[in-house]
Amino acid sequence: MELNVYLAGEIHTDWRETIRAGAAHLPVTFTAPVTDHAASDDCGVAILGAEDDKVWHDRKGAQVNAIRTRKAIADADVVVVRFGDKYKQWNAAFDAGQAAALGKALIVQHAPEHAHPLKEIDAAALAVCETPEQVVQVLDYVLTGALPR
Amino acid sequence: MELNVYLAGEIHTDWRETIRAGAAHLPVTFTAPVTDHAASDDCGVAILGAEDDKVWHDRKGAQVNAIRTRKAIADADVVVVRFGDKYKQWNAAFDAGQAAALGKALIVQHAPEHAHPLKEIDAAALAVCETPEQVVQVLDYVLTGALPR
Amino acid sequence: MELNVYLAGEIHTDWRETIRAGAAHLPVTFTAPVTDHAASDDCGVAILGAEDDKVWHDRKGAQVNAIRTRKAIADADVVVVRFGDKYKQWNAAFDAGQAAALGKALIVQHAPEHAHPLKEIDAAALAVCETPEQVVQVLDYVLTGALPR
Amino acid sequence: MELNVYLAGEIHTDWRETIRAGAAHLPVTFTAPVTDHAASDDCGVAILGAEDDKVWHDRKGAQVNAIRTRKAIADADVVVVRFGDKYKQWNAAFDAGQAAALGKALIVQHAPEHAHPLKEIDAAALAVCETPEQVVQVLDYVLTGALPR
Amino acid sequence: MELNVYLAGEIHTDWRETIRAGAAHLPVTFTAPVTDHAASDDCGVAILGAEDDKVWHDRKGAQVNAIRTRKAIADADVVVVRFGDKYKQWNAAFDAGQAAALGKALIVQHAPEHAHPLKEIDAAALAVCETPEQVVQVLDYVLTGALPR
Amino acid sequence: MELNVYLAGEIHTDWRETIRAGAAHLPVTFTAPVTDHAASDDCGVAILGAEDDKVWHDRKGAQVNAIRTRKAIADADVVVVRFGDKYKQWNAAFDAGQAAALGKALIVQHAPEHAHPLKEIDAAALAVCETPEQVVQVLDYVLTGALPR
Amino acid sequence: MELNVYLAGEIHTDWRETIRAGAAHLPVTFTAPVTDHAASDDCGVAILGAEDDKVWHDRKGAQVNAIRTRKAIADADVVVVRFGDKYKQWNAAFDAGQAAALGKALIVQHAPEHAHPLKEIDAAALAVCETPEQVVQVLDYVLTGALPR
Amino acid sequence: MELNVYLAGEIHTDWRETIRAGAAHLPVTFTAPVTDHAASDDCGVAILGAEDDKVWHDRKGAQVNAIRTRKAIADADVVVVRFGDKYKQWNAAFDAGQAAALGKALIVQHAPEHAHPLKEIDAAALAVCETPEQVVQVLDYVLTGALPR
Repeated sequence: MELNVYLAGEIHTDWRETIRAGAAHLPVTFTAPVTDHAASDDCGVAILGAEDDKVWHDRKGAQVNAIRTRKAIADADVVVVRFGDKYKQWNAAFDAGQAAALGKALIVQHAPEHAHPLKEIDAAALAVCETPEQVVQVLDYVLTGALPR
Repeated sequence: MELNVYLAGEIHTDWRETIRAGAAHLPVTFTAPVTDHAASDDCGVAILGAEDDKVWHDRKGAQVNAIRTRKAIADADVVVVRFGDKYKQWNAAFDAGQAAALGKALIVQHAPEHAHPLKEIDAAALAVCETPEQVVQVLDYVLTGALPR
Repeated sequence: MELNVYLAGEIHTDWRETIRAGAAHLPVTFTAPVTDHAASDDCGVAILGAEDDKVWHDRKGAQVNAIRTRKAIADADVVVVRFGDKYKQWNAAFDAGQAAALGKALIVQHAPEHAHPLKEIDAAALAVCETPEQVVQVLDYVLTGALPR
Repeated sequence: MELNVYLAGEIHTDWRETIRAGAAHLPVTFTAPVTDHAASDDCGVAILGAEDDKVWHDRKGAQVNAIRTRKAIADADVVVVRFGDKYKQWNAAFDAGQAAALGKALIVQHAPEHAHPLKEIDAAALAVCETPEQVVQVLDYVLTGALPR
Repeated sequence: MELNVYLAGEIHTDWRETIRAGAAHLPVTFTAPVTDHAASDDCGVAILGAEDDKVWHDRKGAQVNAIRTRKAIADADVVVVRFGDKYKQWNAAFDAGQAAALGKALIVQHAPEHAHPLKEIDAAALAVCETPEQVVQVLDYVLTGALPR
Repeated sequence: MELNVYLAGEIHTDWRETIRAGAAHLPVTFTAPVTDHAASDDCGVAILGAEDDKVWHDRKGAQVNAIRTRKAIADADVVVVRFGDKYKQWNAAFDAGQAAALGKALIVQHAPEHAHPLKEIDAAALAVCETPEQVVQVLDYVLTGALPR
Repeated sequence: MELNVYLAGEIHTDWRETIRAGAAHLPVTFTAPVTDHAASDDCGVAILGAEDDKVWHDRKGAQVNAIRTRKAIADADVVVVRFGDKYKQWNAAFDAGQAAALGKALIVQHAPEHAHPLKEIDAAALAVCETPEQVVQVLDYVLTGALPR
Repeated sequence: MELNVYLAGEIHTDWRETIRAGAAHLPVTFTAPVTDHAASDDCGVAILGAEDDKVWHDRKGAQVNAIRTRKAIADADVVVVRFGDKYKQWNAAFDAGQAAALGKALIVQHAPEHAHPLKEIDAAALAVCETPEQVVQVLDYVLTGALPR
């Protein structure tokens, strides 16, 4: 068995690298959104032409990014969504909703203090982790049957 | 044509009543989550037995509420998601993600200052409204072809 | 058996009325796009706020109209698409494509001189009519087994 | 991530070659309809037997071509539809409708003067480009995160 | 529980009337193809225009009839297919294949001597009956739990 | 909101009547398998002809019953599965698996001592009840928002 | 583009070899049912145990064969169904019905004299061939754009 | 043709090894749940943190295991479910229900004495085997057409 895993959510820390490194020995293909914040915000107007209104600037960018993220979610066996400590992160919750509706295995990772506002998302998940290391351990067990020592 | 409309999101103001009243002349059936905050938080343990750990208290409740919300989203032609001014509201974004993945017509309603963090959700919507009154006008036009005077 | 029939395409003649009148004795529910051309073009900005750029003016309107047309196509058993003598009518062909991909029974109605450029759409249809009266006769036969006298 | 991209629409210029050449460094598999106009028009009767009536001549050909185009659209992650300056191009709009209904990421490419009659199709797209070069830039960004310099 | 039952297959005897009469006390809605053989054969050309070639005469008719039969199969909970003693009846087997692929409950009714050539169809059925009366008994039991006395 | 609820599982006690009576004030339509054990076991041979081999006796009956149970599960919003104290009850678990795979809201009801062998089924459920009364309370809350007093 | 093609229908002549040989230069993967008539008839009892009753002998075999044929149809892009000159061939029509309902590209091959009783199946096909050589030509054109010389 | 086969059910004997060894010459990829009973029971708490209550201990584990088993069932062409002589084995029946609802080819393997309580599951299967060796013979025939000698 091999897994295709989409790493959604927070883009301000290196948690994706922690998971990729920890899972380097496993038959997992990881995908992710574009994590260069500036490129992600400006891709629409940089390619398709400038907009005066910030709303349409954002709309063009969000739709171009959606080509990548929808493909990644559609192809994923597992969607990992990490909620960090800052920002609204509505996009992370939106990705979790898409994953849940498409029947993807959902793994949520967040600090314990966010458990109450995330309770509906956690309730749709098959694993709720506190750390990226736990995400790696879940993937390792799922693929190999090995538990952490 | 008749519409089944699910009113998702913020539960601390009476925006749902504004929409229901404004659309009273239209062939629309509205559904909503349980908006009694205390009941919604405690339904799991009140029915299925107490839990010491708040995480499982919340899990039981969120899953019981999901029986209602998944049914409502699945039956909806249109999902309206309102983001208010307070709280994390990850559940609202999660509902929007489910609606988008299921191909529901999505109408988002929020104040202009939240446009940037909501850009991915707005980009998946067919209408982005600033007020509940605009939501009513969209429903009216969709069903009758009449524009606001 | 009852049929839900969506009447897509040309909005400058009264062909829909011809069909509705001819099928008045049949158990058919008809739906249609908003056929008031001005309202259809301006609905987005009239409800959701003005735009300086015609592209976004059109985008807002097209998306609001899509709430109605997608619902109508999704609910339809039969999609009738009429191509008239004027204009690009790309929207009519777009609706035909959606209907075909969703497995709807497609009836196309157009003058014989348009047969060659419409050959791919005709090839996806279950009936190709020259007149609205023929559309009525098809619906009548499908529902009652009666042939025109 | 790799992409399967179907290049639909206009067959009288070499825009497909522009895109293939521009995207040669990317992990993209391109498909296209048969672009030899004469072969495409005559394939049905050439293989399955002559027809006196042009309608059936066209029908046979359109259905044989549909074996290729439906497969290509069904397998595509992204459907690019180009509208040129001439002809009815209803087939292009029909392909766009199929792509939209199947949930494919839709990229439309056309000159600005066609924006109004294409507004419904543009409203279903995730990117609206004026040139084939912009299509390449979108694919490049989606796959690599790199913006044009 | 109510059932929508499509009665497919042989059109030369009154077996459908036997079933309708026998099930008159049950909450069953029956549908059927057009059973007027001449009308069924000629409907295409009678409405859409004459054809010199019998193949296209038949094609037009078969496609118009498909508007009715596909709708009926799609809406059915149960598809009953009767094979009679004469003719090729490939259309009956074709309907059975559609019903099986769509996950409909399939009831086949035929004389025992046809069991071997029908073994693949019988193997996809939930009941194989020898008589129309048995079909009624199956429907009665399914809806009421009552066995024949 | 109205609910269609299928009551699967144990057929030796009157738990279905407890639920029907308790939910009499709610907009719920209940369905159930045939609960007359003898009729359920013998329906196949009683209608379709006797079998010497018990395996085929059972096969005919199980397939006739499947016409009813598959329809009931397919139409259900909620599937309640009760596990009693006796017998293998593999059929109950089989129904739970079908419900889960079809995305139905699953409510499981069993005594606490069966929790360990039922852990995979409970993990797919949105509510795990110990008593039929709790099932009623869940349905009441889901439909009305009212908690038990 | 590559094609997966299932060769259904008549098993008494070497038409499959004609097609395989003719298409040897094309990127096509062919699948087929087990064409050893005796093995196909007896596989059920040979593996799972003898049956006295021919009906159950056939049932066991038909179901084991269905493991192969359903997989082959589900994986196919194109389903070719050949009707020969003899036998009932209801299984061929049954396969055609499954292919049509699953949205597979259907190619039918039969002698002209069978056109009338096959009109419903032909009407669901994208190509109707008289010879296996024509089937090869269709596949060649679909994949390469080349017409027969 | 290649097959992806999920081996569900009993984990206390080496039946999976018997099948893997017997099918070593066939193009089959086998998957299975984690069959280390202790690891399977404890995986949730070992990775995601201890629980005082056995119910939540089990819930966490069952959900982590579901990441693997749902993926395996979703990817499978054939699901083999073995019922052994001991324990409740509700999980095996639950997997069979999921497989049936998803349209997987189901092969059930059990001793004859369990035929009656398994009759509904057997009725949804395409082969009912008494031994793992018969499972291998079915796979061999399906893939090669060869019968056991």
